[in-house]
Amino acid sequence: MLKRLVVGRPFRSDRLSHELLPKRIALPIFASDPLSSVTYATQEILLILSLGGVAFLHLTPWIALAVVVLLVVVVLSYRQVVQAYPTGGGSYEVASQNLGRNAGLVVAGALLVDYVLTVAVSVAAGVDNIISALPELNPHRVLINLVFVLLLTAVNLRGVRESGRTFAVPTYAFVAGVLIMIVAGLAETLAGHRPVAESAHYDIHAEQAGLTGLALAFLVLRAFSSGCTALTGAEAISNGVPAFRKPKGLNAARTMTAMGALSIAMFSGITLLALIAQVRIAENPCDLAGFPGSCENAAQRTVIAQIAAAVFGGDHSAGFFYIQATAALILILAANTAFNGFPLLGAILARDRYLPRQLHTRGDRLTFSNGIVLLAMVAAALIYAFDGSTTRLIQLYIIGVFTSFTLCQAGMVRHWNQELRTATDPASRRRVRRGRAINAFGACFTGVVLVVVLITKFSGGAYLVVIAIPLLFLLMRAIRRHYQQVREELAPDETGTLLPSRVHAVVLVSTLHKPTQRALAFAKAARPDTLTAITINVDDTETRELQRVWESHDLAIPLLVLESPYREIARPVVNYIKKLRRDSPRDVICVYIPEYVVGHWWENLLHNQSALRLKSRLLFEPAVMVVSVPWQLRSSTARNLERLDRLPGDVRRGIPAHRPRRTGQPR
Amino acid sequence: MLKRLVVGRPFRSDRLSHELLPKRIALPIFASDPLSSVTYATQEILLILSLGGVAFLHLTPWIALAVVVLLVVVVLSYRQVVQAYPTGGGSYEVASQNLGRNAGLVVAGALLVDYVLTVAVSVAAGVDNIISALPELNPHRVLINLVFVLLLTAVNLRGVRESGRTFAVPTYAFVAGVLIMIVAGLAETLAGHRPVAESAHYDIHAEQAGLTGLALAFLVLRAFSSGCTALTGAEAISNGVPAFRKPKGLNAARTMTAMGALSIAMFSGITLLALIAQVRIAENPCDLAGFPGSCENAAQRTVIAQIAAAVFGGDHSAGFFYIQATAALILILAANTAFNGFPLLGAILARDRYLPRQLHTRGDRLTFSNGIVLLAMVAAALIYAFDGSTTRLIQLYIIGVFTSFTLCQAGMVRHWNQELRTATDPASRRRVRRGRAINAFGACFTGVVLVVVLITKFSGGAYLVVIAIPLLFLLMRAIRRHYQQVREELAPDETGTLLPSRVHAVVLVSTLHKPTQRALAFAKAARPDTLTAITINVDDTETRELQRVWESHDLAIPLLVLESPYREIARPVVNYIKKLRRDSPRDVICVYIPEYVVGHWWENLLHNQSALRLKSRLLFEPAVMVVSVPWQLRSSTARNLERLDRLPGDVRRGIPAHRPRRTGQPR
Repeated sequence: MLKRLVVGRPFRSDRLSHELLPKRIALPIFASDPLSSVTYATQEILLILSLGGVAFLHLTPWIALAVVVLLVVVVLSYRQVVQAYPTGGGSYEVASQNLGRNAGLVVAGALLVDYVLTVAVSVAAGVDNIISALPELNPHRVLINLVFVLLLTAVNLRGVRESGRTFAVPTYAFVAGVLIMIVAGLAETLAGHRPVAESAHYDIHAEQAGLTGLALAFLVLRAFSSGCTALTGAEAISNGVPAFRKPKGLNAARTMTAMGALSIAMFSGITLLALIAQVRIAENPCDLAGFPGSCENAAQRTVIAQIAAAVFGGDHSAGFFYIQATAALILILAANTAFNGFPLLGAILARDRYLPRQLHTRGDRLTFSNGIVLLAMVAAALIYAFDGSTTRLIQLYIIGVFTSFTLCQAGMVRHWNQELRTATDPASRRRVRRGRAINAFGACFTGVVLVVVLITKFSGGAYLVVIAIPLLFLLMRAIRRHYQQVREELAPDETGTLLPSRVHAVVLVSTLHKPTQRALAFAKAARPDTLTAITINVDDTETRELQRVWESHDLAIPLLVLESPYREIARPVVNYIKKLRRDSPRDVICVYIPEYVVGHWWENLLHNQSALRLKSRLLFEPAVMVVSVPWQLRSSTARNLERLDRLPGDVRRGIPAHRPRRTGQPR
Repeated sequence: MLKRLVVGRPFRSDRLSHELLPKRIALPIFASDPLSSVTYATQEILLILSLGGVAFLHLTPWIALAVVVLLVVVVLSYRQVVQAYPTGGGSYEVASQNLGRNAGLVVAGALLVDYVLTVAVSVAAGVDNIISALPELNPHRVLINLVFVLLLTAVNLRGVRESGRTFAVPTYAFVAGVLIMIVAGLAETLAGHRPVAESAHYDIHAEQAGLTGLALAFLVLRAFSSGCTALTGAEAISNGVPAFRKPKGLNAARTMTAMGALSIAMFSGITLLALIAQVRIAENPCDLAGFPGSCENAAQRTVIAQIAAAVFGGDHSAGFFYIQATAALILILAANTAFNGFPLLGAILARDRYLPRQLHTRGDRLTFSNGIVLLAMVAAALIYAFDGSTTRLIQLYIIGVFTSFTLCQAGMVRHWNQELRTATDPASRRRVRRGRAINAFGACFTGVVLVVVLITKFSGGAYLVVIAIPLLFLLMRAIRRHYQQVREELAPDETGTLLPSRVHAVVLVSTLHKPTQRALAFAKAARPDTLTAITINVDDTETRELQRVWESHDLAIPLLVLESPYREIARPVVNYIKKLRRDSPRDVICVYIPEYVVGHWWENLLHNQSALRLKSRLLFEPAVMVVSVPWQLRSSTARNLERLDRLPGDVRRGIPAHRPRRTGQPR
């Protein structure tokens, strides 16, 4: 029932092809991550520069400019990718096809890690903005985070198209709101009413005062690394190309451009307004001279919240709440990018046998449910471990992004080189050369940024990612090797299997009751070459009683008693079967186990489970078939009619519990 | 390996009869509980009287006298029980045979609860005495408690006789030590050197000062109830009669008398010395004026510790440490009484089908292992929930004891009445009349005490027991009813079962590999009337590929494709089988499921488990046999040789891992 409520009715497999997205829906779904990251990118730059004191804040525009340039390069590069590889493998496919399997796997590992972090960071930042508007929620930060992860999981288990509809409105609302805020703020400034942030009068206690030379350069590079969070998720579109309408590649490229333009406009505008309104923010609020309230417990307002309050006239204005609400929404929905990307990538990796096959199974609603649940669990664990702190989580971020950026662009360069070998007419050669130039520049630029990010973020938590990506890499290779080995081992014999010459039936008997009688009847009906009933003597009295009853029933089947001085069940049976096998190695042994099927889980507690354990032990013996002959207790049929009459899926499909039984169907 | 270390090598079933106990070993095993309770009985009386202030302590001798009288009555009564019922059912057997099933079940519930509390209280009191000697252990109280429960579990899993040997020495050492301490203390007093307790100069802040009338009577009754803890475990011998040597009844009765005499001597002596040495003790140390150290964190010394220190010359004397060590030992070993009694009672109840059958299974060392483990778990949970506090745990105690005392004695009265009807010669009639008088007096006395205990302890925690005993009663009746129903349902048909007319074999195929080939070969070898291979179409491409391979292999078995638009496995198969059954209701259907057996648990994660789920679903269909055809992957045979070559029990029996394989045994 719960599952049906959350997930909805299952979809038929043939509905799959209809789940395609027009550009205006694809943009909010895939671009909500890069668009939403403008809410924290500026803030992260300011946070780092603040470590050096107020004086260093004048470096902000230059750092922002570098980020914008990087963004342009990445967008241009990925426009090439989506058109050259419209199958949705994205960076993973580009890297593995051009740079080899191992490069592809590194990219895959990096992307998987980054999808998880996208969920964690976006949800955490969204909750930050909610708390900026409603500070009294601060004590419940982690709980609110986890609730949102849960909600996202539920929404995504319901399927792609509903996600699109759900997410388009808030994304566009946010973009419109921010653009209006920027225009309004700039207009106010030009009109002479410069907006002033609530923190403008704070002084910052510099943790690293008077930096010069290398130390200064390091601080600037750290600020730049943090600003690069604006780029996260830029590759999401390249992994989602198959979800676009045709022409998929071109539509994806256009969506990419729109996303880039919006990102740049919003990021630049917010940074500009932050400087105009003199927003002050610090990693530790206790470093802010003038911060009201307890700097231990109270939370600082996010940069975007402070700007909105300054532009729209205070933290009770409608504009402030509008921006906070849409910012929180888009951030939490940005996590949805990962909920689209992670399961898709997981399914591709599972198809290539690098991940467990279950990730390739589509759920009731045609989504890759297992991937969705896996992503949600890991992200929730991260949020819990890092107390839902955006600033701490963001330290782990971006490394994966730039690993995949760099490898993907490098792969594209090789791709163009191969194209160049076959391209003949000047126009296409020109196109290829231009593409190669863009991607080569992109590869170099993102490669440098990767090194910068690695150096500046390593000690802050990024080392975890540096450990995680190679681990994932090795794990995926091991999984692939395992599948390969099993596949080779199980490859069918072309000659077919030798037919066993005879069948020996062995019926396990503990006491003579209806299940045993049924097992004996079924065994007889199968007309084996030999038929023996065996019982294990654990208790002399019981065994003698069984022998007495056996004889009184005149069953015409010999009852063999196996001694078990140590009161074991499995050993005597296995030894007996080994002996049978030794005597006639070409035969097959069919072990019948009478079982009774109970209707309630607790009934299992009341019946010895030795038969089950014996069954799993027998499976390790070659040339043995284990036959379960079930006897359905009334509790399994009558009392639990409503449960057992349903097959998996009934509840979700809305098939009523008490279907009329077809007549003529014996029970 | 761990199990072998803890439990030891298994015993053969035929060793069972040798596990009988001579009286000198039976006394410490079964009487350690009543003997050990003298360590806390006096203390519990003083604790309650202290609530009224120092003035009320002069009531102690009268309360102690009442307890001694009660002890004499109970010992005399139970001497009758063990001789009349030497089968070891004890109070349970007496009550159910004479007062009916329901009375017996109430007794059984009460005894089960009390065994658990015996473990919890005795271990907690033992740790109290350890902490009296080594106060720095106080912060680790609960942990130490749990470690002792674990140790007791291990010792008892090793078997009865070893327990006897292990427990005889400390019990006798304790008895000797206490008797010497009493004699020495009295001698000192007579010689004019009255021993003085360290707490003699404390003043007690009376929580209930100036009590009179009913309130006073209530306090006295509460003190008496607490003193009755001296009687706990008195019935243990009656439950353990079968473990005695012959003549079992007489030997048990003599042990009972010895136990009673020792109990009375020690309890009286300790109470006398506590009064002479003016021991002061309070439920809350903060009520003691003069208590040194923090009354919040420090623990009071137990009464017996204070007496030992006073008699033997301080808390660094050898005598003090000897008494504390043996008191702690006997208390912790007293818990062993319950480890003997609980599993035995559990096995009897399981034999009578009031508890799950597993409790009737003897483990490797012929002990009722499941009962031992169950007892340990519940007792550990209680200790954890009550922070290992003896005073709080003791509130739950005694109700069960007196419930079973009263019902048992009442049952004995009816027993004698019946005997009287058949007894003819005057000597035996006299004997029966005397027995009836003793038991009638015992029933009345213990009945009154039960009411007193119920009233005075109810609010202090005893209400939990008042809830638990009826719950256990209802549970046991429900279990019995379930077993009865199943038994009736499964009673063999005298006519035998009708043989099914034909066998339809259905082989489930997902892909054509060696396991499928083997399943097909085995199915063919069984020569069914019809043989069909079926596959479920979840993915069109894969199904077409399977059909292609199928045809290329020329298998001469039709491959039926079942559609599954909702990507389910179970439903199409079950529907197909239902249809087969409708078409030929008198036939049996044999479903072959190819399985591959993996060697490591994690390999299961990499393979879809849909076959397993299908199997358990098919068991609910009537007239279906489910045949598992295992294919052993190399990892299950080669790599895990050492694990899979061993059968359950090997490790414990010391069979080496790499046994030479018998030649001629094909794999």
